[in-house]
Amino acid sequence: MPAATPAPVVLALAAALGSSVVTDAAALRDAQADKSGHRSAVPPLAVVAARTVAEVQQTLRIASAHGTPVVTRGAGTGLAGGAIGSAGEIVLSTLAMDRLLEVNAADELAVVEPGIINAALNEQLAPHGLWFTPDPASRAISTVGGNIATNAGGLLCAKYGVTRDSVLGLTVVLADGRLLELGHRSVKGVTGLDLTALMVGSEGTLGVIVEATVRLRRLVPGITPTIGAYFADVRAAAAASAAVTAAGIRPAVMELVDAASLDAIGALLGLPLRERGAAYLLVQTDGAAAEAEAAQLLALLAAAGGTAELTTDAAEAARLLEVRRAMHPAMERLGTTLIEDVAVPRSALPAMFDAIAAIERKYGMVIPTIAHAGDGNLHPNFVFEGPDVPEHVWQAADEMFQAAIALGGTLTGEHGIGLLKRRWLRGELGDEQFELQQQIKRVFDPAGILNPGKVF
Amino acid sequence: MPAATPAPVVLALAAALGSSVVTDAAALRDAQADKSGHRSAVPPLAVVAARTVAEVQQTLRIASAHGTPVVTRGAGTGLAGGAIGSAGEIVLSTLAMDRLLEVNAADELAVVEPGIINAALNEQLAPHGLWFTPDPASRAISTVGGNIATNAGGLLCAKYGVTRDSVLGLTVVLADGRLLELGHRSVKGVTGLDLTALMVGSEGTLGVIVEATVRLRRLVPGITPTIGAYFADVRAAAAASAAVTAAGIRPAVMELVDAASLDAIGALLGLPLRERGAAYLLVQTDGAAAEAEAAQLLALLAAAGGTAELTTDAAEAARLLEVRRAMHPAMERLGTTLIEDVAVPRSALPAMFDAIAAIERKYGMVIPTIAHAGDGNLHPNFVFEGPDVPEHVWQAADEMFQAAIALGGTLTGEHGIGLLKRRWLRGELGDEQFELQQQIKRVFDPAGILNPGKVF
Ligand SMILES: Cc1cc2nc3c(=O)[nH]c(=O)nc-3n(C[C@H](O)[C@H](O)[C@H](O)COP(=O)(O)OP(=O)(O)OC[C@H]3O[C@@H](n4cnc5c(N)ncnc54)[C@H](O)[C@@H]3O)c2cc1C
Ligand SMILES: Cc1cc2nc3c(=O)[nH]c(=O)nc-3n(C[C@H](O)[C@H](O)[C@H](O)COP(=O)(O)OP(=O)(O)OC[C@H]3O[C@@H](n4cnc5c(N)ncnc54)[C@H](O)[C@@H]3O)c2cc1C
Repeated sequence: MPAATPAPVVLALAAALGSSVVTDAAALRDAQADKSGHRSAVPPLAVVAARTVAEVQQTLRIASAHGTPVVTRGAGTGLAGGAIGSAGEIVLSTLAMDRLLEVNAADELAVVEPGIINAALNEQLAPHGLWFTPDPASRAISTVGGNIATNAGGLLCAKYGVTRDSVLGLTVVLADGRLLELGHRSVKGVTGLDLTALMVGSEGTLGVIVEATVRLRRLVPGITPTIGAYFADVRAAAAASAAVTAAGIRPAVMELVDAASLDAIGALLGLPLRERGAAYLLVQTDGAAAEAEAAQLLALLAAAGGTAELTTDAAEAARLLEVRRAMHPAMERLGTTLIEDVAVPRSALPAMFDAIAAIERKYGMVIPTIAHAGDGNLHPNFVFEGPDVPEHVWQAADEMFQAAIALGGTLTGEHGIGLLKRRWLRGELGDEQFELQQQIKRVFDPAGILNPGKVF
Repeated sequence: MPAATPAPVVLALAAALGSSVVTDAAALRDAQADKSGHRSAVPPLAVVAARTVAEVQQTLRIASAHGTPVVTRGAGTGLAGGAIGSAGEIVLSTLAMDRLLEVNAADELAVVEPGIINAALNEQLAPHGLWFTPDPASRAISTVGGNIATNAGGLLCAKYGVTRDSVLGLTVVLADGRLLELGHRSVKGVTGLDLTALMVGSEGTLGVIVEATVRLRRLVPGITPTIGAYFADVRAAAAASAAVTAAGIRPAVMELVDAASLDAIGALLGLPLRERGAAYLLVQTDGAAAEAEAAQLLALLAAAGGTAELTTDAAEAARLLEVRRAMHPAMERLGTTLIEDVAVPRSALPAMFDAIAAIERKYGMVIPTIAHAGDGNLHPNFVFEGPDVPEHVWQAADEMFQAAIALGGTLTGEHGIGLLKRRWLRGELGDEQFELQQQIKRVFDPAGILNPGKVF
């Protein structure tokens, strides 16, 4: 039920931006949640579905004048609550700014608007023999702007880098509506401080990304051998993945699935996966050495106690990949899922699995966990009933964060801080750095209207 | 001739740090210059040759208390004047903090003190089968701390990345002596703003790097084929290098040497290089596809009009490499050299060479130029007599910077702004960004004692 009298800021926005300003109940409700399972208590004032840079600038000028907070939102697939709108806030959606502005094959770069969906960009790049390498598992549904704002990782990032490695330049609208051009089209450049790198992963707290110049790669020619290997326990699988890194092989994909995850995935797919083992390692190699590396890996995984099969057949590969791909839907069937995201040095993967097992025992819960084993990033899934994360789950998660940090890692490898991990941020950064980061935030956004209450 | 009465800040430093504080005339004179050819008019007050983190902290606390500027200095090989000490300043050298603190092969990382020489680090890593990929041509003489503070590039960076890509975490001493831990040991992490990335390339203006956790790679096994190719003119060579990129091949090394450079190198080596052509392209491939790629390149370069030879013999390869390696000594013989450093998108290399040729004609000067062709970074060399850059050289350089920026590039690809490019910084960044960068600088260093007058 919309308020009888719209807020002055909404009237001002509507006067300036007309139909780009949306206030119907369904749109406001959608903007109260992302894919974290979290939902705000009160809807935002309005959603501005910006279509141009000028509209983004006007929105911020008006919001600044009214002192109204602005939550920038891409596709809303975030897992940290960063794009959630709440009472008294404007949600600024960049989803409709979705054009591919330029593809330059000679320079291996593209210029895009922020709302373009990752997979849609890659579809348009394929005919040029090019691709944008960041590949979050959400690539079919998340925006490139969101990928940049969260510094998204993905399955291929151990070999092909995280989103930061793919950003050459950004156009950003500041809180007061000013336009900023950061970076350049050349692959190198050290002119002043690297504000492009600072913007990447800033989760909507420093400015609104309205254009990005991204680095592309040539599509990797040749076949992509796929290996699926079952192990007796997760420690053995983690040790095997560490052995792969130690052998100097850098697979394109190396994903680890634990026993509880296999249980849930097996139930979803109707397959007796657990009869085959208590942990699963999925590995793909690509490039000129793909086949030689795959053969080497097959031997290595067998020596590490795995029951491994290798295929170059597309249908067989799809079957091996399906186990990993079914993780998210399998979790959704169990209840509300808090998908956690710790990262540790790769050699600490077995120790981190031990820590998770200890937390499972202590709290009497099961924490299905998958890992991007090639880069030491784990996604433990906390499953519960209802929309709110129960306090004992946060306690268990807290112990898990401490364990990751003690192992030299971090509480978030790719999802970000958003709303849900704010209370742990200071602990990881330390007081000095926390203060410094807030001061930098204030340089960009002195009035504090950009995503207030997120991250900091 | 040292001042009769040492400044109070020097007395305080000497009382606290004893023999780490150096004030003899030779040391002060050395600290007045780097490898840019520039030299300050007046020596600094003292050099502190710090041996520990605690000494760095004490130096900054004392300098802060006295309001004395501090110039951090590694090996002093910089080409932008960033490490030059001047009147009333303390030079804080990190050169003696040169230990390799840890090598972790399983996690492909090392922890180092900032003063370790790049090549010395790599020598110590080699027995582990690992290397630190940043490879400025100064790798035998520059420090890893300096490489990080300048985000150094090098010959291999088109394939293996710039220094930023190799930094996981940093320990930094702030202007007031506080210690800051940035980043982590995991390869991924998105906890808050990425201050690690912001520190990289900050040229001593934000803090003093006292420890770094750096990412390593496995040594690339197999042979490294080397190709040397002569072309009729520099445009043809530049077009050939663009064709290499366009063909989807990413060589480890691709260096371009123009006619004026070949003249000088030929004179130095006593070889008739110019009889073979008016531009030289040096290309190396490595990794699993090295030989296949080299064969493909040989055909491609010939088709582009080059007279190319390919070798896998070490002595022959050394002969082909020597042409490029002799560039710096060849320039030194001509007079004082201002080594410039513009970068452009790779496809704009031919256009940039045209722009340089036009500037040569307009100013009646010869500008020997080499390029890291794989990443569009050119080093035009301005040669003159005496220690100071004549005004007409700056005018010519200015036109060259404008040309690079107009082509979508930058005025410095790897050397940084330092002292020598300050006057062009605002032009490239724009007023808004220039202001913002200065405000960020003030967050780190409110009193402005870190490298004042450099960069900003
Ligand atoms: C099934 C599933 C799988 C996933 N897998 C991965 C994965 O493998 N790796 C990974 O990293 N993440 C993953 N995610 C999380 C999420 O998809 C990513 O964080 C993604 O990058 C978010 O993009 P988005 O467009 O949905 O952004 P949103 O969720 O809309 O926003 C995310 C954050 O970015 C900010 N933001 C968005 N657009 C802009 C902009 N234009 N300017 C400034 N700030 C902006 C928002 O304010 C918010 O803080 C997954 C999510 C799901 C549901
Ligand atoms: C022959 C020759 C070839 C070169 N080739 C290349 C090349 O290929 N690529 C390239 O990028 N550069 C090159 N350079 C330039 C130079 O070597 C690099 O910039 C190098 O990274 C500087 O390292 P340094 O230890 O000498 O630093 P210095 O010159 O001492 O300092 C450089 C800057 O870094 C700051 N700094 C140094 N140490 C620290 C620290 N611990 N904490 C904070 N700030 C610090 C200084 O204040 C200064 O601003 C070359 C130089 C020469 C002489």
